[in-house]
Amino acid sequence: MQTDLVRIKQDIEELARFNATPGQGLTRFSLTKEDREAREYLKSQLKELDVEIYEDQAATLFARREGSDSDLPVIMLGSHFDSVRNGGNFDGPAGVVMALEVFRLLAENGIETRYPLEFVAMIEEEGGRFGSGLFGSRAMTGQVDYEELKNNIDEDGISMAEALRDFGFNPEEIASASRKPENIKSFLELHIEQGPLLESKDKDVGIVDYIVGIKHLNIRVSGRPDHAGTTPMEMRADAMAVASKVIAGVDKLAVAENNGTVATVGNLSVKPGATNIVPGEIQFTVDLRSKEYASIQRVKEKIETELVKLTSDNEALNYDLDEVIDIEPVEMSEEILSIFKNKAENLDFSHEEMVSGAGHDAMVMGAITDVGLIFVPSKNGRSHCPEEWTDYEDLQKGIELVYQTILELAEVVN
Amino acid sequence: MQTDLVRIKQDIEELARFNATPGQGLTRFSLTKEDREAREYLKSQLKELDVEIYEDQAATLFARREGSDSDLPVIMLGSHFDSVRNGGNFDGPAGVVMALEVFRLLAENGIETRYPLEFVAMIEEEGGRFGSGLFGSRAMTGQVDYEELKNNIDEDGISMAEALRDFGFNPEEIASASRKPENIKSFLELHIEQGPLLESKDKDVGIVDYIVGIKHLNIRVSGRPDHAGTTPMEMRADAMAVASKVIAGVDKLAVAENNGTVATVGNLSVKPGATNIVPGEIQFTVDLRSKEYASIQRVKEKIETELVKLTSDNEALNYDLDEVIDIEPVEMSEEILSIFKNKAENLDFSHEEMVSGAGHDAMVMGAITDVGLIFVPSKNGRSHCPEEWTDYEDLQKGIELVYQTILELAEVVN
Repeated sequence: MQTDLVRIKQDIEELARFNATPGQGLTRFSLTKEDREAREYLKSQLKELDVEIYEDQAATLFARREGSDSDLPVIMLGSHFDSVRNGGNFDGPAGVVMALEVFRLLAENGIETRYPLEFVAMIEEEGGRFGSGLFGSRAMTGQVDYEELKNNIDEDGISMAEALRDFGFNPEEIASASRKPENIKSFLELHIEQGPLLESKDKDVGIVDYIVGIKHLNIRVSGRPDHAGTTPMEMRADAMAVASKVIAGVDKLAVAENNGTVATVGNLSVKPGATNIVPGEIQFTVDLRSKEYASIQRVKEKIETELVKLTSDNEALNYDLDEVIDIEPVEMSEEILSIFKNKAENLDFSHEEMVSGAGHDAMVMGAITDVGLIFVPSKNGRSHCPEEWTDYEDLQKGIELVYQTILELAEVVN
Repeated sequence: MQTDLVRIKQDIEELARFNATPGQGLTRFSLTKEDREAREYLKSQLKELDVEIYEDQAATLFARREGSDSDLPVIMLGSHFDSVRNGGNFDGPAGVVMALEVFRLLAENGIETRYPLEFVAMIEEEGGRFGSGLFGSRAMTGQVDYEELKNNIDEDGISMAEALRDFGFNPEEIASASRKPENIKSFLELHIEQGPLLESKDKDVGIVDYIVGIKHLNIRVSGRPDHAGTTPMEMRADAMAVASKVIAGVDKLAVAENNGTVATVGNLSVKPGATNIVPGEIQFTVDLRSKEYASIQRVKEKIETELVKLTSDNEALNYDLDEVIDIEPVEMSEEILSIFKNKAENLDFSHEEMVSGAGHDAMVMGAITDVGLIFVPSKNGRSHCPEEWTDYEDLQKGIELVYQTILELAEVVN
């Protein structure tokens, strides 16, 4: 392999130093001191290479490496470098380090490509600080406006607009971060799997064919709060009784689709929430994901049918269903997929063609360009926690695969 | 009727003035400024009567009215005068006003009874401030020790021991509040129903035959937090999937007992509690009540059977079940019950013999003496909320019934 294991390890470890919660996992929120330190580290590394470093108004850090034919659209490589609270060292940085290492290899091997390349390091993919994720890629695809920047507020009441301004950006010009589809040839991302599949199947790398569609539902079941002792069962309008029956069926609805569709009720709150009061209101979330949009839609409809059924006999029972996120599945570029597979075979890397169950910046970029996404294994499938881990040898293989792919996709001319 | 509607209304309204949250329901926590003001109001009213006013070390306010035979055990009348946060004007005070009005009627009619009587006004029945309810009656029945007073801490970190000391009591002598069973003939309480039965059946008063037994379970289902997108359904240990299936069956288990048994899941919390993370831990409460202890026990056992079944196939799934409250049903005194019924018929009050689904001080007092409990209707069954309401005419009827009962039970001698 041409990639340098020591260098890769060092990049990951250096970036992990810029952390607001040492000893309790990695916390690097967007537009904080830790963001600035990580950004400075990346810039210092990029400065060694023959690239043009710049930032857009969404605070995405770019480094452009010219191609021999500078009129051609650019091939982008990268990921994000923000983290969740108390997360791990790899979610995001793995892909940024990939882009950095690819750029280094190109430089040290004196390689000239026909297509220009851009290193891309984005922030707020997690939405950890301002609550609205996939930020850098949404800005690049023209999906962020100044209103959003003013409305997205952190815990301390600071808006993303203010935070950007403090970093020297001009949030009112966020639209300038938007990129023209015709100027981008493709976007290649490497990310940790954040799931157990590669490890359990003992595969070196995952080659993603689809990023799942995602629907988030916020469901509110309202009933009537009553005294838990003095209200006979037949006189209740118990929001928990309804919600629990709906939730109890959700896993089977996903399994019934028989195509890898997943469904999760990850949060639930009770009002008033006392041991001795019949719940008057239950709010819960449903996260639905599938590579088939029809499956997502069908599970949602069956949930709603159940809600209608369980609330129809009692006029004190009602429900609301809000669809807060609705993203269609994204198909990866067949051309990139096929290069990935050929290169993996040449490199003798065991590989799995798989669905990405998580949304990534590549998913958003899919709206304007061809995308490719490589997964590297996650130890015990863990992510978003201090235990998040990828063996450096595994990360190296993923980076090697992207490097070899770039050599073909960007067309080496010397 | 001999009771005075104007006076009853005035007592309720005066007590309602001592309120920490005017405009947002009644909040009168124990051993606060509002407690002191209400206590002073009650003392001022009692001073008009020929009684000995005293307080025990549990801050319960007593007024003793001697009987012609002062060696006889005492008949106690009363309830509590603390409230929940943002509660109503009647839960507690209705019974205290009952005792006050009965004492006034005895005084103004110059009635002498063979048995001595005690007016009783207790605090912290709700556990609103210090978390551990039924306080006054537990102290009288010897169930409170100094350790509890030190351990029960309010939101501001003040222990009940400190609060009692600030009020001039000596918490180290709490044991002195304990009363000897042979010195008490009976305890009569009047309380709002806090349920919909009397109103829906259009009855004037409820005559309680049993106070239900209560079991509170804290159940924790633990699984494994996983990414909601990247973890296939068959590789999950989803605590919500287990908990929801258990909870979905709880109402049917209660109904199957076919004897008025009620079961409520009033609170539930999720860890980590994010839309896109499979729940790793669910905690929920179960409140079980029945006049048959065997029914409570059976429902609990069926819940546990279900927990075992749903967690047995996956070693990452486990559960704990803690029994935090376990109170057996209390049967009311047959003698008092029979007098209540006769008097209600004589007074031409429509009445319902019914179970009390809520625990009351009468339930605790049942451990050391005969108890009787009268319910008055609750508007829309509401309680523990600003809308809590009992028509004064209904309250008057309940008080009249207790007054007529006392005349017989305490044996008028003049």
